[in-house]
Amino acid sequence: MSKQSGVIFIGNKPPMSYVLAIITDLSSGKSNEVTLKARGRAIATAVDAAEITRRRFIKDLTVTSIAIGTEELPAREGENRTRAVSTLEIKMTKK
Amino acid sequence: MSKQSGVIFIGNKPPMSYVLAIITDLSSGKSNEVTLKARGRAIATAVDAAEITRRRFIKDLTVTSIAIGTEELPAREGENRTRAVSTLEIKMTKK
Repeated sequence: MSKQSGVIFIGNKPPMSYVLAIITDLSSGKSNEVTLKARGRAIATAVDAAEITRRRFIKDLTVTSIAIGTEELPAREGENRTRAVSTLEIKMTKK
Repeated sequence: MSKQSGVIFIGNKPPMSYVLAIITDLSSGKSNEVTLKARGRAIATAVDAAEITRRRFIKDLTVTSIAIGTEELPAREGENRTRAVSTLEIKMTKK
């Protein structure tokens, strides 16, 4: 799971790993906002992580915006078309 | 894939099945709005279907709102806890 300030990239670990990353990020005190970014199958994991954090751990965390999009990935070797992959971004703020 | 007016429930078929359902729904002329509802792993398929429809087929379709949530499902036989499953709702409007 890569990180840059306030942004958590969701991969294929279990949702709980990202829940922990969100909690750590918000308790660092640098910012009261965190953004989850996911693409492809990891999109479902991003929603899981957001919901588990909000419901079980940080009750005053609210979803401020959700955006969907598409990213063009370079063609795999032997293919000659770029691949399109869906993306999801969830921004959450702690009051 | 179940249907009620203007709502398309996303299951585990390929995204293209739902793209077709969206296009059919919008061309019926009943409404210029359609809502995709998905839970669990199907959440990624919902985003795929929305993005494919918007980018490839109906260019003037815009996402008007996206919401995430959690649904409590009854416990499976032999278990005594309800299961929580994440949900996603994407509302889109054709201009």
